[in-house]
Amino acid sequence: MSVPGLENVIANETAISYLDVEKEEIVLRGYDLIELANNATYLDIAGLLLDGALPTPEERRLLEVKIKSEYGLPRNIQSILQLLPEQANMMDVLRTGISAIASYDEELDDRSNDANTHKAIRLLAKVPQIVANGFQATNNQPLIEPRKDLSYVSNFLYMITGNVPTLMEEEVFDQSLIAYSEHELPNSTFAARVIASTQSDLYGALTGAVASLKGTLHGGANEAVMYMLLEAQTEADLERLMLKKLSQKERIMGFGHRVYMRKADPRALLMKEALAELAAEKNAQELYDRCVAGEQVMKREKNLYPNLDYYAAPVFHLLGIPIDLFTPVFLAARTIGISAHVMEQHGNNRLFRPRVHYTGPRNLHPPIK
Amino acid sequence: MSVPGLENVIANETAISYLDVEKEEIVLRGYDLIELANNATYLDIAGLLLDGALPTPEERRLLEVKIKSEYGLPRNIQSILQLLPEQANMMDVLRTGISAIASYDEELDDRSNDANTHKAIRLLAKVPQIVANGFQATNNQPLIEPRKDLSYVSNFLYMITGNVPTLMEEEVFDQSLIAYSEHELPNSTFAARVIASTQSDLYGALTGAVASLKGTLHGGANEAVMYMLLEAQTEADLERLMLKKLSQKERIMGFGHRVYMRKADPRALLMKEALAELAAEKNAQELYDRCVAGEQVMKREKNLYPNLDYYAAPVFHLLGIPIDLFTPVFLAARTIGISAHVMEQHGNNRLFRPRVHYTGPRNLHPPIK
Repeated sequence: MSVPGLENVIANETAISYLDVEKEEIVLRGYDLIELANNATYLDIAGLLLDGALPTPEERRLLEVKIKSEYGLPRNIQSILQLLPEQANMMDVLRTGISAIASYDEELDDRSNDANTHKAIRLLAKVPQIVANGFQATNNQPLIEPRKDLSYVSNFLYMITGNVPTLMEEEVFDQSLIAYSEHELPNSTFAARVIASTQSDLYGALTGAVASLKGTLHGGANEAVMYMLLEAQTEADLERLMLKKLSQKERIMGFGHRVYMRKADPRALLMKEALAELAAEKNAQELYDRCVAGEQVMKREKNLYPNLDYYAAPVFHLLGIPIDLFTPVFLAARTIGISAHVMEQHGNNRLFRPRVHYTGPRNLHPPIK
Repeated sequence: MSVPGLENVIANETAISYLDVEKEEIVLRGYDLIELANNATYLDIAGLLLDGALPTPEERRLLEVKIKSEYGLPRNIQSILQLLPEQANMMDVLRTGISAIASYDEELDDRSNDANTHKAIRLLAKVPQIVANGFQATNNQPLIEPRKDLSYVSNFLYMITGNVPTLMEEEVFDQSLIAYSEHELPNSTFAARVIASTQSDLYGALTGAVASLKGTLHGGANEAVMYMLLEAQTEADLERLMLKKLSQKERIMGFGHRVYMRKADPRALLMKEALAELAAEKNAQELYDRCVAGEQVMKREKNLYPNLDYYAAPVFHLLGIPIDLFTPVFLAARTIGISAHVMEQHGNNRLFRPRVHYTGPRNLHPPIK
């Protein structure tokens, strides 16, 4: 018989990451993700995921140089983004953009570890710009080009908002990118590995991951959280809204997790602390309090803990990121994790090809021609 | 422990199709696929997959009317195809085109069975044109528009070749589309169901399937077969080429199958008969003989049977389809099968989220900041 959703089924071996639910630890190549978030930068994590070891400061500097040398989108790609309709969903725009740039990669057909590393670096360079320019193109705004004088993380936020972030904003955004960088085998990473197992390329695998992450049961959740937080004006409002949704058996996004179940998502606490800091700086204490109130309602009513999306959403909001870009930013941050999984899959491949339990009819015959 | 590639693992229930390897039968909603191919048309199979029952002649006529009412691509989509680089891989072009048209579907966010049926019909109408126009756009040829006065299958081949096919060509192409229409849970269909299980939409799921099918271990095989058949000029040439590849431990595409293992693929025989007919009509007896000689070499040397790709490739070739479009045509034919699976997944959903067996290090610590 089949296990719906392959719940708890082991789909593959990996040396990249592991959710140790018992110890409430997200293991990332041997390190605790939260410890990394508090002591390293997003580019350190990118290096760790790509090479298997934390980069030295000099190696990290070299990685940033390599990424910056790949900045920029072909003019035709920008034109393609501008040809998409104004009402387009940003994840669809991102999917089309990533799919289209594949044709510009001269190493596209090379599945070696070196070529895949180059592709991952190109994607690190270009995906944030597709996110930003995709939004601008479909909202009749001028396309913002990357600035090499800014740090990688600062430039990403700058391309989205048009403003150079403060050091504090940069640090919080860096932490949120780390929080989203890698998380074992969620649906999008699994989809990417399934696709890569046909010996298809990283761009195609990532395109499938974008499609997966778009779903409301996956990446789409952080946007739903923000709409709910903004629909309520006060703590009491939010409690009423949540109780109403619960009484109508509506799903409340941002709580619970297939793997964590009734335990806390360590990333949620990380982002809660970042939100506290950001809210203090930006006179948004009320938003922080509202979020905490919502957390308490869900604990009391459903014994559910917040997941990463619940606290990342208000963080993104205070950083000036448009809600439509919350899921695209998640995907941009996760690109490095997905790249590592595709490289691992190509390095020791077996085609994913499961079977089904057939429940339909048998022995029917068409009218003979 | 994990089963590499989820081999023989049951991933989901389905009432759509089942490979009964024991009986050498491909069951499609209760019917034998080969019996369907010999007694029904591709649009009958489309109706069967969409609605669960073989359409009456009147229902099939109505389905064709509905599909034709959705013919045509937005001008911007044609422009996007023309902006892609000349050397682009046709599966990448197809992936970008399908990703981009999602933004034009007014029912995109509706997951109901009705809305999904409409989307599937739109895809049936538009995917063949993206295949044909994608090739023309990246080869500096004028884009051929669909002709409603031709049958659905005749128009598909006409858009690719620029010539209205003979009745015999149309019938053979129709059979090849049926052969490729649906096949249980191959990697591409599995990828589509995984993606759809986040409540992502049919276009996104199909985009992931295109990415999967591009891989040389999956859809890419039919193109590899044709290059091998053309590299050899005679039966003796082909035998020499195959023996050389075997001695170098090179994989020979078009033989063997994860599920069929050491049994015949019923679709291969169907296409072998179609090839015999087509070769007689087109004075290409030599190509047919070469294929049969290759089949005998592989049976003798490796005890392997040909799969669908081995005989579909020369059929496509004699129908005038460019080799670069073999895999895109496979995807176009499979679009209806994948649509049925996505609809079934949305109808009774459980998010796919398996786990991993972690083989990496533990208890590492970053330098404290």
